Amino acid sequence: MSSAAAKPILYGYFRSSCSWRVRIALALKGIAYDLVPVNLVKDGGQQFSAEFKAVNPMQQVPALKIDGITLSQSLAIIHYLEDTHPNPRLLPQDPKKRAQVRMIADHIASGIQPLQNLSVLKQMGEKKMEWAQHCITAGFQALEQILQHTAGRYCVGDEVSMADLCLVPQVANAERFKVDMGPYPTITRINKALLELEAFRVSHPSRQPDTPAELQA
Amino acid sequence: MSSAAAKPILYGYFRSSCSWRVRIALALKGIAYDLVPVNLVKDGGQQFSAEFKAVNPMQQVPALKIDGITLSQSLAIIHYLEDTHPNPRLLPQDPKKRAQVRMIADHIASGIQPLQNLSVLKQMGEKKMEWAQHCITAGFQALEQILQHTAGRYCVGDEVSMADLCLVPQVANAERFKVDMGPYPTITRINKALLELEAFRVSHPSRQPDTPAELQA
Repeated sequence: MSSAAAKPILYGYFRSSCSWRVRIALALKGIAYDLVPVNLVKDGGQQFSAEFKAVNPMQQVPALKIDGITLSQSLAIIHYLEDTHPNPRLLPQDPKKRAQVRMIADHIASGIQPLQNLSVLKQMGEKKMEWAQHCITAGFQALEQILQHTAGRYCVGDEVSMADLCLVPQVANAERFKVDMGPYPTITRINKALLELEAFRVSHPSRQPDTPAELQA
Repeated sequence: MSSAAAKPILYGYFRSSCSWRVRIALALKGIAYDLVPVNLVKDGGQQFSAEFKAVNPMQQVPALKIDGITLSQSLAIIHYLEDTHPNPRLLPQDPKKRAQVRMIADHIASGIQPLQNLSVLKQMGEKKMEWAQHCITAGFQALEQILQHTAGRYCVGDEVSMADLCLVPQVANAERFKVDMGPYPTITRINKALLELEAFRVSHPSRQPDTPAELQA
């Protein structure tokens, strides 16, 4: 009866890299959820509907209804899942390693993704592709260097962390924008290792209920 | 002798809103530090120097040398300070309230600030001012609505939190870009209450060692 006992509802879009981050976290932590697809391009963007604005005033996906509250912002959602479902953990116990995980996650979530999202690209007109490539390239150059100091099998050591949940969807964006991944062997290696894990595969944009038939894996 | 015992070094810029977030956290937690100013406009941007790139491959401020490591990304730095200097706390104990704090902080740090930062504005040419106003206005409309559900004296309840550390510098940016604050009475009220606190005053851009004379308070 209580809202806390209800299945969480994820408002997301198959191709949204921020939605994918949350789908990976839900999969890793084994949390079952219902999906409400929000198509970011159809009807001028369903995220701008009055109906969705009532769910998330930020008019963005992902949003997660869980335990009687509605959260938005992918990393805030993932932190909440970490606080309430600590196993398996997505943040290392050591504060320095935890800081490195958050630094990499925020580098992607604040330093790369927002610069190449739909709203900015619209403003760039003809320079759209070039701008997206520029932002991702600048961000990946820094990230490749940082990973030299932090990476093991994954972004920070050998445990999957919040940083990895940001990395894989950002590499997928890079591929969509035809960024040359040659200069980033560490990013490429980690991305490949992560894509072998079940939680990254079931959450993949090519395998969602709202994935158009022609893009399905 | 050990690097862990050395005073932290903050690489920052008086006017950088992300640097200000970290200065507030350091002030609230009573952590003394040395400042290395990095002028984001002089010499084509000192953050692009080889010397600073060695400190922070992301070529951005703030960066904090602390306990033998160098961290970047303001919220990752603040989380690290929270983990290692928990008093006074900047995250509530209740997981739902903590999620609301992070949602608001990330909304500003990923959803507003990156869209109106220097690198994007450069691309916008003549539309620069209009674009910055558009991004901040859209972000503040959502934030004003969210604060209806979360705010007490401050962004979430009556305790200063990580959300407040993001709010005040973003309002200062809004003022620089001449955003009409009329439609945001809650944001305005909270900002005013926060600016009365000592930690927000000593960390203010008008009172830093690298503040130019004509901008000093």
